[in-house]
Amino acid sequence: MVSLEQKASEWSGVDPKDAVAIDEINLFEKLGLQTFINLSTNFYNRVYGDEEEWFRSIFSNSNKEEAIRNQYEFFVQRMGGPNLYSQRKGHTALIGRHHTFPVTHKAAERWLHHMQQALDSAADIDEDSKTKMINFFRHTAFFLVAGVELKNQNKGTGCKNCSHHH
Amino acid sequence: MVSLEQKASEWSGVDPKDAVAIDEINLFEKLGLQTFINLSTNFYNRVYGDEEEWFRSIFSNSNKEEAIRNQYEFFVQRMGGPNLYSQRKGHTALIGRHHTFPVTHKAAERWLHHMQQALDSAADIDEDSKTKMINFFRHTAFFLVAGVELKNQNKGTGCKNCSHHH
Repeated sequence: MVSLEQKASEWSGVDPKDAVAIDEINLFEKLGLQTFINLSTNFYNRVYGDEEEWFRSIFSNSNKEEAIRNQYEFFVQRMGGPNLYSQRKGHTALIGRHHTFPVTHKAAERWLHHMQQALDSAADIDEDSKTKMINFFRHTAFFLVAGVELKNQNKGTGCKNCSHHH
Repeated sequence: MVSLEQKASEWSGVDPKDAVAIDEINLFEKLGLQTFINLSTNFYNRVYGDEEEWFRSIFSNSNKEEAIRNQYEFFVQRMGGPNLYSQRKGHTALIGRHHTFPVTHKAAERWLHHMQQALDSAADIDEDSKTKMINFFRHTAFFLVAGVELKNQNKGTGCKNCSHHH
């Protein structure tokens, strides 16, 4: 599993130390709940309205309001606030909860494109917090790409007895 | 993914509300870092010394000191303390980080047996905290059983084209 972090850093270009700079201050106390709600609402408005159908379709089986709440509750929990996500849904289990989505490099970059736009338009977030957050998001996105790739490799391994039939 | 929590509750017998009762108070502030270090050390001494070879062997490729640190840093992070685990290792990603282990019902019960013994012998943890923690541990153990089973089902699906060859 060590290689997940290594891959995440390599692919994202974000040093592990920069990825956890969100812990240097309590971003929840600094920004407040409404800022996180605004950010996730802005983000998912862009995602569900994406002109790129391949990306938009990844979310087509998910409820938009539910997606917004899942996201900002996770952000609040991870960035110094109360454990809103876990109290409602249990463990965050990021890799496990993304296993049904096609988390490719291309999808990670598209996700980050929309998040960068959402952050750029967020007047209620200071520049230093934005930098910390985008580094965390970028590293996390590729951590998930690596996690999903690992799972797919395991699928292959689980099937190796019959691979010569294909 | 909703069914993971449902399965965890059904198999563990722990109501979701009881599983997150650890959030009713700040257990880290109440118990302190050393108590968590003691608990995880006690737990893994039992695990690595288990007379049941099938269970002990699950951990034979893991370093004991590393296992202890991973565990108490996660507990501290989840129970109100600083994000020690994430600062050192990244996302907790419970399902993803257990995917190489055979997390069966039987293994979950053996894990819980040792944790119950470790809690029973912990003089530095009050009874109310012990109850909250064992409910969290029990629900989490079966959350992971469900997560690993889901992954194995996916393996099966990934191999369905050749399943009639077996």
